[in-house]
Amino acid sequence: MQDIVKYRKVLERLIDEGQELKILTLISRLHPDDIASLIDDLEEDQKSRLFRLLDVETAADVIMELDGISRELIVEDIPDEKLTEIVDDMPTDDAADFIAELPEDQAQRLLSRIDQDKSEDVQRLLEYPEDSAGGIMQTELVALGRDTTVTRAIEHIRSRRDELENVHNVYALDDESRLVGVVPLSSLLFADGETPLKDIMDKQVVVAAAGMDQEEVAALFRKYDLVSLPVVDDGRHILGRILVDDIIEVIEEEVSEDMFRMAGISEEEDVVYSGPTFKVCMTRLPWLVFNFFGTLVSGYFLWLYQSKLTEMLALLAFVPVICAMSGNIGVQSTSIVIRGIATGRVDFSNLRKLVFKESAVGLLIGLVCGVLGGVIGFVWQSSWLIGIVVFVAMFIAISFGALLGVLVPLFFKKIKIDPAVASGSLIATTNDLVAINIYFLFAAFMMRCFFTA
Amino acid sequence: MQDIVKYRKVLERLIDEGQELKILTLISRLHPDDIASLIDDLEEDQKSRLFRLLDVETAADVIMELDGISRELIVEDIPDEKLTEIVDDMPTDDAADFIAELPEDQAQRLLSRIDQDKSEDVQRLLEYPEDSAGGIMQTELVALGRDTTVTRAIEHIRSRRDELENVHNVYALDDESRLVGVVPLSSLLFADGETPLKDIMDKQVVVAAAGMDQEEVAALFRKYDLVSLPVVDDGRHILGRILVDDIIEVIEEEVSEDMFRMAGISEEEDVVYSGPTFKVCMTRLPWLVFNFFGTLVSGYFLWLYQSKLTEMLALLAFVPVICAMSGNIGVQSTSIVIRGIATGRVDFSNLRKLVFKESAVGLLIGLVCGVLGGVIGFVWQSSWLIGIVVFVAMFIAISFGALLGVLVPLFFKKIKIDPAVASGSLIATTNDLVAINIYFLFAAFMMRCFFTA
Repeated sequence: MQDIVKYRKVLERLIDEGQELKILTLISRLHPDDIASLIDDLEEDQKSRLFRLLDVETAADVIMELDGISRELIVEDIPDEKLTEIVDDMPTDDAADFIAELPEDQAQRLLSRIDQDKSEDVQRLLEYPEDSAGGIMQTELVALGRDTTVTRAIEHIRSRRDELENVHNVYALDDESRLVGVVPLSSLLFADGETPLKDIMDKQVVVAAAGMDQEEVAALFRKYDLVSLPVVDDGRHILGRILVDDIIEVIEEEVSEDMFRMAGISEEEDVVYSGPTFKVCMTRLPWLVFNFFGTLVSGYFLWLYQSKLTEMLALLAFVPVICAMSGNIGVQSTSIVIRGIATGRVDFSNLRKLVFKESAVGLLIGLVCGVLGGVIGFVWQSSWLIGIVVFVAMFIAISFGALLGVLVPLFFKKIKIDPAVASGSLIATTNDLVAINIYFLFAAFMMRCFFTA
Repeated sequence: MQDIVKYRKVLERLIDEGQELKILTLISRLHPDDIASLIDDLEEDQKSRLFRLLDVETAADVIMELDGISRELIVEDIPDEKLTEIVDDMPTDDAADFIAELPEDQAQRLLSRIDQDKSEDVQRLLEYPEDSAGGIMQTELVALGRDTTVTRAIEHIRSRRDELENVHNVYALDDESRLVGVVPLSSLLFADGETPLKDIMDKQVVVAAAGMDQEEVAALFRKYDLVSLPVVDDGRHILGRILVDDIIEVIEEEVSEDMFRMAGISEEEDVVYSGPTFKVCMTRLPWLVFNFFGTLVSGYFLWLYQSKLTEMLALLAFVPVICAMSGNIGVQSTSIVIRGIATGRVDFSNLRKLVFKESAVGLLIGLVCGVLGGVIGFVWQSSWLIGIVVFVAMFIAISFGALLGVLVPLFFKKIKIDPAVASGSLIATTNDLVAINIYFLFAAFMMRCFFTA
């Protein structure tokens, strides 16, 4: 697996020379995920030439591991007949994801050509939203009456060996076909043949509803250390199961989304990393333009104040640091809240504690930085007035910045908007604006007190 | 599982009333992870009172799911004898993690009291760095000669039923005990009893070296869709195996680390969310202080320039927006690089492409924002000179900001420092400084050209 780069060079040469047999020998030693990486790295015209050499089973394993661009190129080149065989060999969740990407007419054609049972299952899966439990589950699973004996259960599994992959659990049903227990394969092996499933099943079955958001599903996997999770309808009838490898993908997706949103980037990873430059700009411009006008307003205030405060031009030197500190602590608080929500460490039960904690942290850090800034202001400009103004403004701007940083994402969460939406950019911009106003208003107040008096 | 809040109220009352039997009835219906959540939420003095009621097996499942603070409180209250039984019932990876947290003398005492084989295994595990493959693996696994028949393999697994939990695979060894294949439990069930393992094993075994960093281990799980991963020494002898639920924890940990570092927060999640206020401040102050001095230098330049540019005070209005834009685009680029490295989308093979892409994005966004700023400057201040200065400065500051945002984390990566270390704060601060200088130097240049002429 380790020497992909070495393989790529050899492979490119073999493809150019058309040495199909040697290619197959080379490929047969590789893991499907590695074959996918190799194809992703090949030149456009070589991708299909390599893919066409794969047997149906390998092709079915490889195709969903390819990046979207490679897959699209390859699919254009495969005859419908081979495509049908490949989809027939995929688990239903992959088949549904694959078909969802195709143009409508090709999708319909494929659905009518593949195995009929599978086609029905796939069409059912396609009805669920992409990011719901139903959208990521597969229908391949083993569910048996709870009175079934271990021997019968094993026979049943063996009779479906061609269809089942990655079986980890047997689901036990009551007489009304409701899910009442789960039996790991290892428990089947441990038990005597005559034992009924109900005697060895775990009755604490963690389940997901089909409409549950994939982020919540991931939280269940994390919390209960699951390898697979059954999805049920309102009557606890089992609809499918979700496997842990798909959940790892979900977690990575959600994390990227949070990190990008924090930085003011909308859109999916695929666009950010592989889209054309213009499209990438469009994922990043909206928030930048928001920031543009936000900070322009800050600038407008700066301009307003400076024209009134020409006698205290020295104050300007502290504008960048006060704005930056207030923005930075805000982004810290926001990151902590957003990550806390994502990992379940922050929820509405411990909210008040969090807000108090962040406020305390803000006050303390505000005090430290305020004293630092005040002393520097006093020493540098030899003016106790500047020292005091910088100290007070910095202290207030930082404490307030921390508070905003924790309240804004919580507010978004409360009104059911993803708290990561723009919170980073929003907080930085808002805090800038607030800081400049605190600073100059207080300076003006001090000057009125001491100079006009 | 869903009604933890409801349970908590009832439970608190029952504990106060000392109704042990009712508590046990209530608890017995719950998943160990839910029991852990309940204990975490209880008042300090009630945590131990509930934990003491659990049977050894449940206690062993619950204890590592508690948060660190609850666990510490509870451990103080358990007699050594019970603790020994609990540790004896834990898998070796949990036992090692648990013992690593104890004071040295208590750890030694426990190690001498638990089952001797387990004690030796645990001591071996304790020698690996916490965040290496060795540090997260467990020694419980099934490894058999590749000539073993399926029937014998199943008998072997059944004979160890008390000790094994979560068996997903049987590892096949050659005559020198080297790992040569992996057999999922389902394949064991599918095959005939007389088949030797070597006929059904998968020879593409993905393995980890014991010293491999946990982040790389997680990448293997993600890439190869694994449920468990064997850890081997240089001679391919199997040392242990890593389970996917531990990997989900690793992924979450690494993500939090990246997000926090981006925001200039050092230290672990536990401290950030549950540490005392003073300690939390110390995780956040270092980078804030760095920013403080960084932006103070920007302020110093601002002060230097403004005293020379009093004739163009209007320029000041654009300082916040130019600094913010350059900082924001830099943070966007940095986020993209850091997340790309974490997910494997960015590596040294596609570096040049990424740098070109980000430069192009920077130039394009710089152009858009530059024109916007230039027009506003021209219209607002009725000065074509200000319009030009704002346009040029904004354009250069943004393009340059994007470039720095991509190059700095790559540079850190190159010199083997975590690119997320401070990149967010570092970039924002550096870009501020650069932007202010570009802006005023260009303004001074323009003024020399047009006014002194």
